[in-house]
Amino acid sequence: MHAYRSMTCAELTRDNVGDTVRLSGWVHRIRDHGGILFIDLRDHYGITQVLCDPDSPVFAEVEKLRSEFCIRIDGNVMARADELVNPKLPTGEVEVFIRDMEILGASEELPLMVFGDQEYPEETRLRYRYLDLRREQMQTSMKLRSDVVASMRKRMWAQDFREYQTPIITASSPEGARDFLVPSRLHPGRFYALPQAPQQFKQLMMVAGFDKYFQIAPCFRDEDPRADRSPTDFYQLDMEMSFVEQQDVFDAVAPVLAGVFEEFGGDRKVDAAADWPQISYRDSALWYGTDKPDMRNPIKMQDVSEHFRGSGFAIFAKLLEQEGTQIRAIPAPTGGSRKFCDRMNKFAQQEGLPGMGYIFWREGADGMEAAGPLAKNIGPERTEAIRQQLGLCVGDAAFFLGGKPSVFEKVAGKARDVIGNELGLTEKDRFAFAWIVDFPIYEKDDETGEIDFEHNPFSMPQGGLEALEGDPLEVLGYQYDLACNGYEILSGAIRNHKPEIMFKAFEIAGYPKEEVIKRFGGMVNAFRFGAPPHGGCAAGIDRIVMLLADQENIREVMLFPMNQRAEDLMMGAPSEPSNEQLRELSLRIIPQE
Amino acid sequence: MHAYRSMTCAELTRDNVGDTVRLSGWVHRIRDHGGILFIDLRDHYGITQVLCDPDSPVFAEVEKLRSEFCIRIDGNVMARADELVNPKLPTGEVEVFIRDMEILGASEELPLMVFGDQEYPEETRLRYRYLDLRREQMQTSMKLRSDVVASMRKRMWAQDFREYQTPIITASSPEGARDFLVPSRLHPGRFYALPQAPQQFKQLMMVAGFDKYFQIAPCFRDEDPRADRSPTDFYQLDMEMSFVEQQDVFDAVAPVLAGVFEEFGGDRKVDAAADWPQISYRDSALWYGTDKPDMRNPIKMQDVSEHFRGSGFAIFAKLLEQEGTQIRAIPAPTGGSRKFCDRMNKFAQQEGLPGMGYIFWREGADGMEAAGPLAKNIGPERTEAIRQQLGLCVGDAAFFLGGKPSVFEKVAGKARDVIGNELGLTEKDRFAFAWIVDFPIYEKDDETGEIDFEHNPFSMPQGGLEALEGDPLEVLGYQYDLACNGYEILSGAIRNHKPEIMFKAFEIAGYPKEEVIKRFGGMVNAFRFGAPPHGGCAAGIDRIVMLLADQENIREVMLFPMNQRAEDLMMGAPSEPSNEQLRELSLRIIPQE
Repeated sequence: MHAYRSMTCAELTRDNVGDTVRLSGWVHRIRDHGGILFIDLRDHYGITQVLCDPDSPVFAEVEKLRSEFCIRIDGNVMARADELVNPKLPTGEVEVFIRDMEILGASEELPLMVFGDQEYPEETRLRYRYLDLRREQMQTSMKLRSDVVASMRKRMWAQDFREYQTPIITASSPEGARDFLVPSRLHPGRFYALPQAPQQFKQLMMVAGFDKYFQIAPCFRDEDPRADRSPTDFYQLDMEMSFVEQQDVFDAVAPVLAGVFEEFGGDRKVDAAADWPQISYRDSALWYGTDKPDMRNPIKMQDVSEHFRGSGFAIFAKLLEQEGTQIRAIPAPTGGSRKFCDRMNKFAQQEGLPGMGYIFWREGADGMEAAGPLAKNIGPERTEAIRQQLGLCVGDAAFFLGGKPSVFEKVAGKARDVIGNELGLTEKDRFAFAWIVDFPIYEKDDETGEIDFEHNPFSMPQGGLEALEGDPLEVLGYQYDLACNGYEILSGAIRNHKPEIMFKAFEIAGYPKEEVIKRFGGMVNAFRFGAPPHGGCAAGIDRIVMLLADQENIREVMLFPMNQRAEDLMMGAPSEPSNEQLRELSLRIIPQE
Repeated sequence: MHAYRSMTCAELTRDNVGDTVRLSGWVHRIRDHGGILFIDLRDHYGITQVLCDPDSPVFAEVEKLRSEFCIRIDGNVMARADELVNPKLPTGEVEVFIRDMEILGASEELPLMVFGDQEYPEETRLRYRYLDLRREQMQTSMKLRSDVVASMRKRMWAQDFREYQTPIITASSPEGARDFLVPSRLHPGRFYALPQAPQQFKQLMMVAGFDKYFQIAPCFRDEDPRADRSPTDFYQLDMEMSFVEQQDVFDAVAPVLAGVFEEFGGDRKVDAAADWPQISYRDSALWYGTDKPDMRNPIKMQDVSEHFRGSGFAIFAKLLEQEGTQIRAIPAPTGGSRKFCDRMNKFAQQEGLPGMGYIFWREGADGMEAAGPLAKNIGPERTEAIRQQLGLCVGDAAFFLGGKPSVFEKVAGKARDVIGNELGLTEKDRFAFAWIVDFPIYEKDDETGEIDFEHNPFSMPQGGLEALEGDPLEVLGYQYDLACNGYEILSGAIRNHKPEIMFKAFEIAGYPKEEVIKRFGGMVNAFRFGAPPHGGCAAGIDRIVMLLADQENIREVMLFPMNQRAEDLMMGAPSEPSNEQLRELSLRIIPQE
């Protein structure tokens, strides 16, 4: 017989009654029922009930067991009495009578219980992660993550992509976020960096003729703490293709992601990839107040400025005299009660706005009646025109925000979310997607008035070199995101593969040619030798698993995460280096004041 | 039609004759045959011949093309005349007459040709890796690597292993090699480290109950330069299992590796996993002079001390009077000529030994005759006894080395290799494997006399705690390597999961308990809470791909390797940090003298 087990703790059925078996696992729960000891023996695969009475030769030792001892038992499989069958357990029809027992690993008193639902502070969970991970929820989440990654791989290969590993120790590249640096011992005073993403390498792969690349790629950014992201690293499904246009990338990646959500989404509905809308960045801002809209929410905001221009509602009428202002309506079907409208107005105030005007429609004495102070101020004609534009009717409401969109848009988007949730308009149990396209290449810094890249400097401007001759703020890029349920789960672009267009694009953002060569020399040099048109994207694996696992905290879907202060208390990282290590690296630490 | 291609450059056949097609790719080779331009158009998948004559509307532009321009062409597929069919090319029956052409990416003069077999210095190849990678051999090697990794994954999943990602930014762990350190910005003066291997994490996974883990894992070591290894990082197929003994690990991993070698070995013979011998570390040293024997070579060395003790060959006889000495024979079937024997003697001298004694057997006047000075010195009886022990006959030879095995063993192993190769005894076109088992846990430093770990300090000693009470140098571990064709391709162990045995094992090597907790606290703490018996191994992916690709240089099987000075000249790594980066990390560089 095998030294540790003849089967796992998930396998025994009524067919095994009478067998002598060997099991290994952990003491999940131990109970004493009238002198008989019942143990739920747990391994990775399941639980089997084993028991021991005073007739067993090892009763005395079994009596000493405590939770989370790792043991091996030999015993006889017996059928449970009908009334004792546990239908929730695959092995619930049998139990094993212990004849022999060996302690494989004893346990001290536990800082964290594996059995039961007790909550523990995150610090405790991370410090004893190996115990925390024994809990059923964590085992399930980690298996889910493992399955999701494997499924992504399978689906990418099925689409003729190949996986290649790009370097993890490489050059610092000022792409936006902060690099983690790695001092070089052989080259004193010089540093490597961990890649923020394999961006340049995957583009170099295309220049090298690899055509279709993907990688489950670790990415490293020295980020300031935030609950929903890791302060050090995260994983992307990174991909790139040559000889493609934007739609080709969508056609390649959408089935992969839709497939993953279908495979692991359980009963939740997944919008078919062919139906994912393509919404321009500007429309998305107008309609949803964000570039990662939650498409489960049917509410679409509208520009209603014309109805307020010169109207009796002086605040909005005056606002509209300023350049770049707008009045926007958030329609709220079924939200037509003063109570709800007041609550939403208060929400806007909490978010730092003066409030949200509203109109709601109710059954009045003479039929439909528009209520709320706004309606009175602008009069029945304009009110009715608004109602018609928004397609609302009795029982509905509309909220209004005015000013510069850049000021109110974020709150408008949040209000849309709240309204959708509170009114039950936002569908639960569904994964809804939208491509956000046509991102502007540049943005203007409101304070300095300087032009800089809005997103990624490597995207191809729509219209090419010619477009860059005009107003930079009008230039759109072949650049896209994919939103799912209000989160950005993918970002990508068709790349700018022509050196002359790239230099021009950087020049507009204030980077002279020498600077571009200095910063991105590896890639820019490569483009001088027959670069193919190419594009791709990267999908956030942690975020996708969080959505599938219905978790808000990234640490619930990572095996051994850092805490929010970027420390690993279990392993003791970061730690003080030895003097010898510092000397070898030619480094000295500047004392803190 | 698609913007760039209606198919790849590998797809056109006679069935397409008459079609109008669109292809994109690189100008692999361009020739002018009597005013007609022939271009081999190359993409990732293959080559198609396209041509252009002065009647084409784009002849003038096509005339300006040079090697490695990236272009798109439209054209008509035509059958080649029978005598012009190229049977070596899948598309060799057709050619495409260019009607339209677009330059997608122009190329400057090339520092490195893609077409042809010209050799370039490694520095040039690495600086322009994106061009080097376009070459057929590199494309093939990288695809092989990608396929091998995918196959390993598939095979591990098929054996119910799951892949999990362990942290890459973690704690420094003094396990032998030098860590790469990563300064922490949020914790001034403290450093993370990149993992030398996921050793501790995979063991923590077992403590956490995951049962079967694997990972295609990047490993980081700050190594001094050597031709056959990367100075920064390498990849392992890393695996671990709970509730197993040594043979269980072998049974799990051997079919995976055998399968990979069979799948990608081409016509080369692969020894069946069930036939891989298990050889103890000590036998391997005796028989092969190494712990990574080339099993394609049938030569097995033998201890022949007894035949020389007190013999007329004074050098050996005297040697044997010293403690710990031995005379070892390398049998050399078919090596029975003075010329060959002298050459081998010279080889030993080049390797720093005084020489190798030899005997060879030839047909003499009275039948078989033993030749060589050694035979004369020890006389016919002893000579015959040696011949019989070694099982040699006319036409064969034997070489002899004497002294302390630790002094001559390495040269003996090399001599065995040379003899096997020179005599054609070593089978070519075969992958031959051997498990090397029973490694000693400890070794004694010859100079200081101190006891230290021979290999990995985490291995379970055979005999457990009891064995550690005796002579440490006699303690063997459940520790193993797998050798293939003279290379170590895998290393592993059953782990020491019992804190009391671990502390004792470290104590013997001179590490007090506090030191063990300080160095390996994460893992040692975990073992206090019900650790299961577990074991595993890690196989070197780079090495396996090198064997399959028949390459000696690791840079031939890596996409973007560092050079031997640990520099990436293409990306400019390592580079000088900015003052701001240093300030953020609270670091100062010590000026070099």
